[in-house]
Amino acid sequence: MSAPTSIELELDRTWTHGPDVQHGGHLLERVAAAALEAAPHPHPLAVSAHFLAAPALGPATVQSTVLRSGRAVSTVRAALVQGGRTCVDVTVSAGRLGPPGVPLYATGAPPALPPVQECVRGAGQAGERNGILEQLDVRFDPGAAGWMREPSAVAEVRGWVRYASGREPDVLGLLCLADALPPVTFALGLRGWVPTVELTVHVRALPAPGWLRLVQRAQVIADGWLDETCEIWDSTDRLVASSVQLAGYRA
Amino acid sequence: MSAPTSIELELDRTWTHGPDVQHGGHLLERVAAAALEAAPHPHPLAVSAHFLAAPALGPATVQSTVLRSGRAVSTVRAALVQGGRTCVDVTVSAGRLGPPGVPLYATGAPPALPPVQECVRGAGQAGERNGILEQLDVRFDPGAAGWMREPSAVAEVRGWVRYASGREPDVLGLLCLADALPPVTFALGLRGWVPTVELTVHVRALPAPGWLRLVQRAQVIADGWLDETCEIWDSTDRLVASSVQLAGYRA
Repeated sequence: MSAPTSIELELDRTWTHGPDVQHGGHLLERVAAAALEAAPHPHPLAVSAHFLAAPALGPATVQSTVLRSGRAVSTVRAALVQGGRTCVDVTVSAGRLGPPGVPLYATGAPPALPPVQECVRGAGQAGERNGILEQLDVRFDPGAAGWMREPSAVAEVRGWVRYASGREPDVLGLLCLADALPPVTFALGLRGWVPTVELTVHVRALPAPGWLRLVQRAQVIADGWLDETCEIWDSTDRLVASSVQLAGYRA
Repeated sequence: MSAPTSIELELDRTWTHGPDVQHGGHLLERVAAAALEAAPHPHPLAVSAHFLAAPALGPATVQSTVLRSGRAVSTVRAALVQGGRTCVDVTVSAGRLGPPGVPLYATGAPPALPPVQECVRGAGQAGERNGILEQLDVRFDPGAAGWMREPSAVAEVRGWVRYASGREPDVLGLLCLADALPPVTFALGLRGWVPTVELTVHVRALPAPGWLRLVQRAQVIADGWLDETCEIWDSTDRLVASSVQLAGYRA
């Protein structure tokens, strides 16, 4: 185990929504990026994060400790700390992803979506700024955008996603995008608060340039808790990341 | 953040297989149990683990730090350490599960299995002891037990599981059982080594007494990596836990 290292971050309004709430996926991307500076491998393979407290705007510190440096995998434990309080606890297992080969096995397919121009551009709630929708160009499948029209019977949200800036997808950005779609509860017409407790992202390949297709689903919403899985497919029809989260549901 | 606490464990042969390799799920259950001793909440809700090194038989220490004690959720970071080396890095978000209510939403169903007596009892490889199969009574669906007969075209393993001792399912045991089925690669006739890198378990309800039904699937096996998801359903047809892992595939 190496000595801990610290990296200072400034948390600004770029990715906030509502009353200056930082986007969880964006925090995860920044913590993982800082953690990887301490690691001998460049790419996050498996990243798990527990969200303990919402950080405020302003300075925060990522404290990282390399737990193991292996040949194929190294593991770094990191925490986003602000005012002595751990806000996000993260562990990153890192490795090196190369050009993708022919899979030994693959099942599933990218979500079936209408062409981009027939999809519905993401828009926040009236009168409320949403940094995610400023940073990302999100086009929802009209058939799974229930909160915009009629509630759906299926807890699924799917759409095209790219950066508004023209930035092409990259491996660290996948950690943010795995949490970028609105909660699947919206599709059901449920408008409660959905605070993420735990989010795990597995990165499977370096994403190709172009639009990404995302699909997010829930299996069970019960007893104040819900699960959400997200798949991210790139423009070559490859699954580049998948994630699962446990969140609260506060009606 | 509280002061770290340490609990000593003895790693014995009870759950080992092959040349005294500890079962990953069993290690996770023991680390989480030790971590929960420091937590104000009794039940693991979301548990993420990174497996860094295989511990040897003998003494090991679980070092736990309570990162946050909230009203509904507390979070504990823990590590299984042996000889100064971190073998398993775990974070547990804990809460309190009560009698399950009517879900707001639920999709999916328990795996369709033939009756227990028509299933195939799990058996290890000839000449090799397997502690998992001594501790658990596992009955595989003959239609998804490819490694025993013909390889399957689908990366899925499913079966009935209970403890051989008569112990009824409990919430901590779910952490072990989420890793108890053989790798899905076996169903495909692939016999490579499948070391778990990261395993996340979400516990959704206290399990009812009786047989559990488990189903484990992979989506992509490529470039030396594979994912596995596992669902655990109890005797009342409730999803009590789901898990996802990223593992290496070493042919």
